[in-house]
Order: sequence, then C-alpha cells, then structure tokens
Amino acid sequence: MNTVELIRKKREGGSLGENELRYLITGYIRDEIPDYQMSAFLMACYFKGMNPEETLSFTRLMLESGETVDLSEISGIKVDKHSTGGVGDKVSLILAPMAAACGVPVPMISGRGLGHTGGTLDKLESIPGFRTNLTIPEYKHIIRDTGAVMIGQTKEIAPADKKMYALRDVTATVECIPLIAGSIMSKKLAEGIDALVLDVKTGRGAFMRTLDQSIQLAKTLVDIGTGFGKETIGFITNMNQPLGSAVGNWLEVAESVHCLRGELGSNDSSSDLMEVTYTLSGAMLFLGKKAKSIEDGIEKCRKSISDGSAYKKLLDLVQAQGGNIEAIKNLESYPLSEFSIEIKSSEQGFIGNIDPFEIGMAGILLGAGRQKIDDVIDPKAGIVLKKKTGDAVNAGDPLAIFYTDREEVISEVRKRISDAFKIQPVQPQRQPMILKIVDKDGVRK
Amino acid sequence: MNTVELIRKKREGGSLGENELRYLITGYIRDEIPDYQMSAFLMACYFKGMNPEETLSFTRLMLESGETVDLSEISGIKVDKHSTGGVGDKVSLILAPMAAACGVPVPMISGRGLGHTGGTLDKLESIPGFRTNLTIPEYKHIIRDTGAVMIGQTKEIAPADKKMYALRDVTATVECIPLIAGSIMSKKLAEGIDALVLDVKTGRGAFMRTLDQSIQLAKTLVDIGTGFGKETIGFITNMNQPLGSAVGNWLEVAESVHCLRGELGSNDSSSDLMEVTYTLSGAMLFLGKKAKSIEDGIEKCRKSISDGSAYKKLLDLVQAQGGNIEAIKNLESYPLSEFSIEIKSSEQGFIGNIDPFEIGMAGILLGAGRQKIDDVIDPKAGIVLKKKTGDAVNAGDPLAIFYTDREEVISEVRKRISDAFKIQPVQPQRQPMILKIVDKDGVRK
Repeated sequence: MNTVELIRKKREGGSLGENELRYLITGYIRDEIPDYQMSAFLMACYFKGMNPEETLSFTRLMLESGETVDLSEISGIKVDKHSTGGVGDKVSLILAPMAAACGVPVPMISGRGLGHTGGTLDKLESIPGFRTNLTIPEYKHIIRDTGAVMIGQTKEIAPADKKMYALRDVTATVECIPLIAGSIMSKKLAEGIDALVLDVKTGRGAFMRTLDQSIQLAKTLVDIGTGFGKETIGFITNMNQPLGSAVGNWLEVAESVHCLRGELGSNDSSSDLMEVTYTLSGAMLFLGKKAKSIEDGIEKCRKSISDGSAYKKLLDLVQAQGGNIEAIKNLESYPLSEFSIEIKSSEQGFIGNIDPFEIGMAGILLGAGRQKIDDVIDPKAGIVLKKKTGDAVNAGDPLAIFYTDREEVISEVRKRISDAFKIQPVQPQRQPMILKIVDKDGVRK
Repeated sequence: MNTVELIRKKREGGSLGENELRYLITGYIRDEIPDYQMSAFLMACYFKGMNPEETLSFTRLMLESGETVDLSEISGIKVDKHSTGGVGDKVSLILAPMAAACGVPVPMISGRGLGHTGGTLDKLESIPGFRTNLTIPEYKHIIRDTGAVMIGQTKEIAPADKKMYALRDVTATVECIPLIAGSIMSKKLAEGIDALVLDVKTGRGAFMRTLDQSIQLAKTLVDIGTGFGKETIGFITNMNQPLGSAVGNWLEVAESVHCLRGELGSNDSSSDLMEVTYTLSGAMLFLGKKAKSIEDGIEKCRKSISDGSAYKKLLDLVQAQGGNIEAIKNLESYPLSEFSIEIKSSEQGFIGNIDPFEIGMAGILLGAGRQKIDDVIDPKAGIVLKKKTGDAVNAGDPLAIFYTDREEVISEVRKRISDAFKIQPVQPQRQPMILKIVDKDGVRK
C-alpha cells in the first residue's frame, strides 16, 4: 500500500477499505506517515466525504488507537449525553446528577471550551477543588459509588483523535461531518457506555449553522452508535440565543445549582435550558430502561428535582471528585469579579434575538474562555442575561450584567453585548427548542 | 494574515490576492509555514482551482523566489520550447540545433524523466561527457557562442517551485492545472526568454489524457506567458503512440542524430516525430522573426536539415557542453546492452495502436528511467519500435527490439511490449499529429 495512492483515491472520490484506513491511521500514529500527507488526505475527505462504512471504520480505528474502559462490573445500562457545543450550554451539569438520581449510571468524558463555546470541564473546574483529571481506576470507582462521573479525555482514550484533531485545527479541515462524527464517537465509545443521547445544536451559536447540516451530523453520529451496537438517539436543538441565563464558568455552575434546587419558575430565563435538559435526560432514562418512554423519563426527572434527589446527587458527585460542597451550598460565598457592569435597554419593545456567537465571544474577552491554547480562564468572569428572546423591555430595563477583572475590555464588551440584543416593536414568535429527533429509524418530530 | 484563514478561503472557493499568496509562498520558503499547511492548501487548490489573476500571481511569486537570467546582451529574440512530456519525445534534441541553425537563440532549461515519460536531461547525459549542470555564466557564454544551450534547473531558478513540487509529488496534488502551469512557466520565465512555444501533449501517453484538459492547460500556459509580455504559442499534439521509433536515452539521441543528418525517408517510423518537430521549430522561427509565418519557418527548418547546418549545430552544442562529438559522429561505437530481444508479431493485420504508457513503463523496467528517485539510469537501455500505428504486419514480422542489461526483467517486458501492440484486421485511419493551436487570440485548427 502507498500513501500517495490512498490520498489520490480519496481525492478522486473513491472509498477506502478498513485495511487502507488502518494503514493511514496506524502509520500516522507511529509517525511513519508525516503530517503533510495526512493533512492532504483530510482536505480530500473534506471535499469527498466518507461513506457510512468508511466512517464506521475510521471511528473504530480512532477508538482502537487507545483503550476502551470496561464498565461491565457496574450494574445497569450506562448512558451518556454528548453536545456538539453551544453558548450557555450547562446541560451536563444538571442532567448528569438528574439521570444518576433516577438510577441511570452516567459515565461522562467532557471537553474544554472551543471557539466561541464553553466546555463542561472548564465549568466543573470553577468549583473549588473539583478534579477532572482522574485516572481510569478512580473513574470506575466514582461511577460505582456515586452513579455518575465527569472527567476529561485521558491519554489512554483515542490518542489518534487527539493527534488528528490538533492537525485539523491548523489545516482548515475541522468542518467535515465524518471527521467530526468519528472524533466525537471514538471518545464516547471509549467511555464504557451502553447507550448515548446526542444534543446536536443548530443555529447561529452552534458549529452547524443550518438545520440540514445538523441533521446530517446527527444521522452520521446515530449510524456510528448503532453500528457499534449502542442504542443512540439524537436531538437537534435550538442554539439561536444563549441557553439559559448565564454564560461563564462559575456563573453557569450557579445557574445549574439553582435549577437543581428547583428555585426557578416555569417562565424565567432558564426555562429554555430546562426544556432541553429534561428532554435529553428523559431520553437517557428511556434508553437506560428506567422509564417507559421519553415522556415518562421527563416526568421522573422533574420529580428528582422536586424531591431534592438530583441536587443531593450533585453534592455527592462534587464531593467524590474532590470539590468543596460548601461552595455549592453557599453560592454567594464565591469571590466576586472586580467589575460588574449592567447593560440597559435604550428602547422599548421586544427582544427579537440575542446573538449567541457575539455573547460567546464577549465571554472570552471577559476571561471566561481562551484566545490562545495556554490562556488561563477566570472562573468568575461572564455574562448573566436579564432578558431573553420574546421578553418585553422598556427603555432603561437591564438586559444583562457582565463580570470581569479586565478593565481594558469593558467598553468593547459593552458594545458587543448591546449589539447582540436586537430589539423590535413586535413580539417574535417563540421558536421550539427541540427541532428534530433522529434515531436508527430516521428523522422525526 | 493567518494561514488557516487563507486555507479556509481557498477551500470555500475564494480567490486569494497577490499579498495573500505572497504571505503563503514566502512563508513556506522561509520554513515559517509548515509542509502540512501547504499541502492542505494545495489540495484545496486541486478542488477549487485558481482564477487567471491568482495563477499569474502564483507564477510571479515562484519566479521571484529565485533569479531571472538576463540575456539582454545576447542579440536576437530568444525563443524556447517546452513539452509537457511524453514517450519517445526527443523533439528538443532535434529542434534546438535546428532553430539555432536558422538564427533563433534557444535558451533551454529541461527536466528529468517523470513517471512513465523520459526527460531531455537524461537523454543529453547519455552523450559521453555532456554536462547539463552548468553555472549561469557558462549558460550565457554558450548561448552567445553557439546559439543554443541545454541545462537543468539550477538552485537559483525558482527554488519555491522546487520545494513545492517535491511536496506535491508526495501528497497527490500534482494534477492541478494552475499549479502545473505556474511550475512550468516560473522556470521558463527565469531562463531569459523573449517568446515561447509549448507542446502540450494529449492522449494515453501524456499527463493530460483528454483533449479538453490539454486545451485548458495550454490556455493557462499561454495566458501566463502573455501576462508576462512573452509571445506564446501552444500546440496540442498527439501522444497516443510513442513519438518516433526509439524510447530510451541513447537510443533517442541516435534517432535524433539520424533525423538531423536527414537520413530518414518521409514515410518511416520517425515521420510523426519530424512532423511535430518541424511545426514547433517553425513556430519558434516565426516568433523569433526569422520567418514570415509558421509554414515559412517549417520550410527554413527543412532546409537546415538538407544543407547540414542543423547537424553541424548539434555537434557545436555537444562540444560546447563538454560532450564527445566522436560518439555522435560514430553512433555504432556506443556500447551495446547485454541483451537485445526481438518481439515478433503472432498475427497478420494492421497495427491499430501502440500503448505509449505501457511502452514507457517497459522502458523504465529495462533501466531507461527511475523507479525511485536515486535510481541510476542505464543510457543504453530502451526499446526501438519496428512498426508504428497504421503499418501492415505479417505473422513473424518484428514489432520491436528491446535492449537491457537486466536479465530478470526480460519476460515481463516482452509481455508488456507485446500487449502494447494492438493488431487489427482493418487499417486504422491516420490520426493527425497537431490537434489544436492555442495563442492569445484563442484556440484554432
């Protein structure tokens, strides 16, 4: 076999067999195939795609480049949730304790912030003492004792993906559905799951901006999960404004704690967040055979909030991973940012739209995300939205408050957040949060 | 400017400005942009192409990465010819002395064999003592004294092309018209030419197999030449059987010498070769203002054969570049291959076709070309065709003789050459050698 011939074959739109993909990927991990050949291959994949068999082989090879955690000693159907990333997406922080409280073991490997989006790991690490860099034995220990565990990618998990992702990032070959799907699924399949729920976000704050692309990605992810014998359901969810009210690491933890404590009314800024969270966790209960249907699962999850069991599960999880539960119990004890700036509406009307991409980028400027790979995150920094799309406003009403220690960014951020709010005279129609459901039988809603 | 953004721009089908291309190419030469980003960019160019302005900028940047030879002190209009490569293509060996004998100075930088095709440098170096690695001062000295000079690419000429070509070769990004055209023209424009004749080969033995691709390449080359103020004419010529009778380095020199001595009849195996050679050299005389038209140029070139001036020019050129003219004068004194094998026809009929790709590959097996970059060429090795397309054959008639020192390849080569000859009951229609003419006014014929 010859690397140039394989690149040419893909360039001409051919399909590579598993042996051919193995030659490329194992050669690449062993440094026998150089970066410059792999990047040409990846660009050819960008243009010519991969068929379902290739995508499955590609995922398997990434998975087999590392270890798969064996959780067979843990009883129950282990179910995880994966999100393709959005702004204000703190769903995992609420969903994992909720599903675990309802009896579904949740083994979760999460990522860090990427581009304009936040990452679950960065959010968890804003809890004082919380450790995400657990060893595999610690990971197994905690899920057995607590029913949930939330860690970062270890060096044992899909090392080929790690190397390939770094190359894609610098060669403009990230935005390719089979490569994205293989990267996501190889990590998820390595966790030891039995089933998976996917949150494929779509819209201005998502990586997939069109519904068609999002459905295509969801289908590819579901096909891979199904191909590996793991029951998989994907939801296409709305990401045309930030999810919930908080954007920024500790601010999102605090919002999640309020949600888990049931301290929020049904019509406040977190209601869109809870609609998505209940749907995804309801599906986890259904796949984990703790509910007869997704709807039944949603009801059981609601109960885990009202009876306090989900909140208690969060405290158990934080304690098990070394976090300080006093910080969770007394949210107001957390340090405050040096500056907190309120942005007021200059006009009367209705919120027509809040651009989640601009809010995400503003959060990064405040210190809530990274501009360079080795930037240190300020866990306190971020934005709390006081109005959401559809809300009525009067001139002078607060739209948002932002928090930062960086005096130098205040004027730019003030402008970006103000500009992100579109105010219009007519109340916009409410957009649904769950746009489509994708499973092995197809796309529905 | 940011390399990833420029790769993405090309990937999305955008056009890069000269400053953007300069950032990429100068960064690449200075090792500030790594191979893996350049190869992703080149693959994006393969899929999205370059518009005429980009192609011109790209060529200029390759050209300006090195030196341009100044031949203004040499009187006359300097005209070169470039061929895109074929099998049995010894046109340059005949054409350069002929055009020079007719008063057109010919500065020629040639290449080595590539893929299944031979290279002019390898052919010249089969002449004992002939030096192709001249310095720029020697190059200028010889064209002034002799009227022609034939060398290889020096390190001063388009170093960016050299580095980029090596990368394209191993990343399946060779077959891209703007990249091919920029590579060819940057080297030609560096020679110090005033005008250029192009031989764009088309068919089974060419790199461009379809007429459409060949026309597209010719147009791109002519546009670049014209854009740089050099009058350029391109000919699309037939490469559906080997050109002339010999394939292999010294064998092709010997055929060229016979042609220059006028020792061949008008209907023998070299007549297709001479038709192409006269047309190209006639065009050189026209561009060099030594003939009123291409047809007039062809007549003057024919005369340079019949009066012996072209042959004498070859001897002068060989002597000036250190070659042994006794080898040219006494072709039969050249060493012989250990094995010479005749292939006979097993049937009666007409030669319908001789596959030039298979003949080229057979030549490489015999030792006439390289399989790996550091293989040493055997100048004696090769094939002489005894029949050409359209010829009548009887069973037992010789079709070809091949020469080699490699006993181990004989049976494979015998089969490949036999299979390359297609014999049919009906005489095929004669194919024209010159298919199209392309100049700044368009495509004609």
